[in-house]
Amino acid sequence: MKSMTKDALLSAFGGESMAHMRYLVFAVQAEREGFPNIARLFRAIAHAEYVHASNHYNILRDFDEDAKVVSGAPIGPGTTVKNLNLAIRGEEFEVEEMYPIYIKIAEEQGEKQAVRSFRWALEAEKIHAELYKEALKSAEEGKDFQIKGKVWICPVCGHTYIGEEPPEKCPVCGAPREKYVGF
Amino acid sequence: MKSMTKDALLSAFGGESMAHMRYLVFAVQAEREGFPNIARLFRAIAHAEYVHASNHYNILRDFDEDAKVVSGAPIGPGTTVKNLNLAIRGEEFEVEEMYPIYIKIAEEQGEKQAVRSFRWALEAEKIHAELYKEALKSAEEGKDFQIKGKVWICPVCGHTYIGEEPPEKCPVCGAPREKYVGF
Ligand SMILES: [Fe+2]
Ligand SMILES: [Fe+2]
Ligand SMILES: [Fe+2]
Ligand SMILES: [Fe+2]
Ligand SMILES: [Fe+2]
Ligand SMILES: [Fe+2]
Repeated sequence: MKSMTKDALLSAFGGESMAHMRYLVFAVQAEREGFPNIARLFRAIAHAEYVHASNHYNILRDFDEDAKVVSGAPIGPGTTVKNLNLAIRGEEFEVEEMYPIYIKIAEEQGEKQAVRSFRWALEAEKIHAELYKEALKSAEEGKDFQIKGKVWICPVCGHTYIGEEPPEKCPVCGAPREKYVGF
Repeated sequence: MKSMTKDALLSAFGGESMAHMRYLVFAVQAEREGFPNIARLFRAIAHAEYVHASNHYNILRDFDEDAKVVSGAPIGPGTTVKNLNLAIRGEEFEVEEMYPIYIKIAEEQGEKQAVRSFRWALEAEKIHAELYKEALKSAEEGKDFQIKGKVWICPVCGHTYIGEEPPEKCPVCGAPREKYVGF
């Protein structure tokens, strides 16, 4: 694997791992404030970030070394309103800068697995940014987020969907409805 | 907060988040190879790393910024024998170099919460390294790891203990038996 694609995968693995972790921390705080649905949204999206991190990490299978990883992370935690703002900033950075550039790097270097893993993540992060913005509106009014049905996560690509049932097949990776995990 | 303690907390947060994530990835592989107890050990220790990451991150509560995080991560995943070797390397780095130095930095700078969070992590990482070494011996012989009882995690400090019941109180942080989470 070319070294700049490797660096991009490492950085994305670090970023996704920390996003996953932040959302678990934020879920605990949302519960404390009496926002069980915002907590549920954080836990569901944490699972999508797990899917992304896992996909990126598994592409690095041919290495056997101790790498240094450089990644971005919004800090620090506070109220749910503050936490949702941190979450939105993290997702928007991934959507507007990070993943578009990482896709270009991997395309330029002909690293097809990395291109696919970055594209799958990008599609989910767009949805995450929107869902967190909606949740922020509720939290700012002191209300919990309304979820009709469940938050569904595609375990192959991390696609995130709110509804009574998951989509018939994943619009991002094509996985069948039965694979989706509901939160 | 002094800037070198902040950098150490950030780096430890990144390292713990990625360790948590790797162990979730490694658990899936252990299940595939027919090692359910090694998978259970990975999931339990992933929870301890969640406790560490969460403790470190929560100390950063007064910030509101997008930080750059530099952390180490052993790559890449493979068979359970390879994964256990990566896990042992990560834990030993934390025990032999990282946490002893981060404790010195935080002590020098009078950052008591960081000292405590680093000490709690160090104590657990010593146990993690030993447990993974035992699991590696089994995996190298093609056998699953033997767990008598459960793997118990202290949700306050990440202390990790195998037995029928958790200890009467946590030997690291003093939390009572009832708080432990069993895997
Ligand atoms: Fe993601
Ligand atoms: Fe996301
Ligand atoms: Fe999908
Ligand atoms: Fe840890
Ligand atoms: Fe550990
Ligand atoms: Fe403890």
